[in-house]
Amino acid sequence: MSNYVISISREFGSGGRVIGKRLAAKLGIPCYDRTLIQKTAEKSGLSPEFIARAEERARSRFHLPFASMGTGVSTYTQQGVPVSLQAFFAQSEVIRKLADEGSCVIVGRCSDYVLGERPECLKVFIHGDLEDRVTRCAEDYHISAQNLTDRVKEIDRGRANYYNYYTGHNWGEMRRYDLTLNSSVTGIDGAVELIAALVRLRENQGGGQE
Amino acid sequence: MSNYVISISREFGSGGRVIGKRLAAKLGIPCYDRTLIQKTAEKSGLSPEFIARAEERARSRFHLPFASMGTGVSTYTQQGVPVSLQAFFAQSEVIRKLADEGSCVIVGRCSDYVLGERPECLKVFIHGDLEDRVTRCAEDYHISAQNLTDRVKEIDRGRANYYNYYTGHNWGEMRRYDLTLNSSVTGIDGAVELIAALVRLRENQGGGQE
Repeated sequence: MSNYVISISREFGSGGRVIGKRLAAKLGIPCYDRTLIQKTAEKSGLSPEFIARAEERARSRFHLPFASMGTGVSTYTQQGVPVSLQAFFAQSEVIRKLADEGSCVIVGRCSDYVLGERPECLKVFIHGDLEDRVTRCAEDYHISAQNLTDRVKEIDRGRANYYNYYTGHNWGEMRRYDLTLNSSVTGIDGAVELIAALVRLRENQGGGQE
Repeated sequence: MSNYVISISREFGSGGRVIGKRLAAKLGIPCYDRTLIQKTAEKSGLSPEFIARAEERARSRFHLPFASMGTGVSTYTQQGVPVSLQAFFAQSEVIRKLADEGSCVIVGRCSDYVLGERPECLKVFIHGDLEDRVTRCAEDYHISAQNLTDRVKEIDRGRANYYNYYTGHNWGEMRRYDLTLNSSVTGIDGAVELIAALVRLRENQGGGQE
């Protein structure tokens, strides 16, 4: 295959972001994660704050698609798009354009869903043992691991809510991914190695199947 | 790690069995699948037919753990073990002994659950696109692919029932596996290559984590 996109979904603390960065460095291609908020803002005219707020709302477990129905506040833009979806649509457009432009790694942002059935998109999910994820978070953010377990679970619930809300599918459903890994078993560099091996496989297949 | 066991769970038609065989050949270790029924019979004194029938019952969606309660028929052996579990317990014992004896590949038989938290057990799940699985089954069994889709789905439901009944967990729940693969994407030999890469990773780690 000429262009390829590796979409990495990940549990919080599983090391998915750093796996994405190291993989991109190894393959010599760009990696996009939260940087997509800025890109979306630049291309859509929406402010980064608006986009971040829309994401935050979608992560909330109290968020309902049509929460303001019956309140007299319009849930639609002038173009007939629900306000809550506007940022997501803009971001999806940016993801599709990046995928058109060249090979890259995209971390999160429902990119596995957005790039849908494109054969050049390899869909990966990274999970990890809860204890290891808590330890990694404590190290990364220089905070005590005590009482962090609930927070890690809460952030994952937020990611699940976000994914389920925007895609209508269940986050972390194995059959939606080409490869899933437990980073507690593979380690960070091991995960990079395995995903790179999958990329090589696809390159050798010329993008087709066996 | 010195000894290791690769447990391969798989959707019907995903090529999991042949992947297990080729992987074992590549690694120079034995592969056990349905052959475990004969081994279980030899070691337990149960007949192969009894074991196969117990498996068949567990796969049935109409099977209930205590189906014969209230019918006057005892559901327990003299040792107080439910009859329906006797074959499973015997098979689990065989699996544990094989894992003690040396490195091997075990396909199916809830081996990921039976070997539980043993660090030397690498847990893999192989799935595949439904269309590809139907095509593979038609080729393997020399039958028409027409009307095979429902049968493939039915066999998978049977595998799920069997796993859920004996383990109390959901079959195909991503977080229970160290590695999951879509064989429609990797191909058979690609899957073998990726699992072998995971084994090498663990060997280099000396069985520990990063």
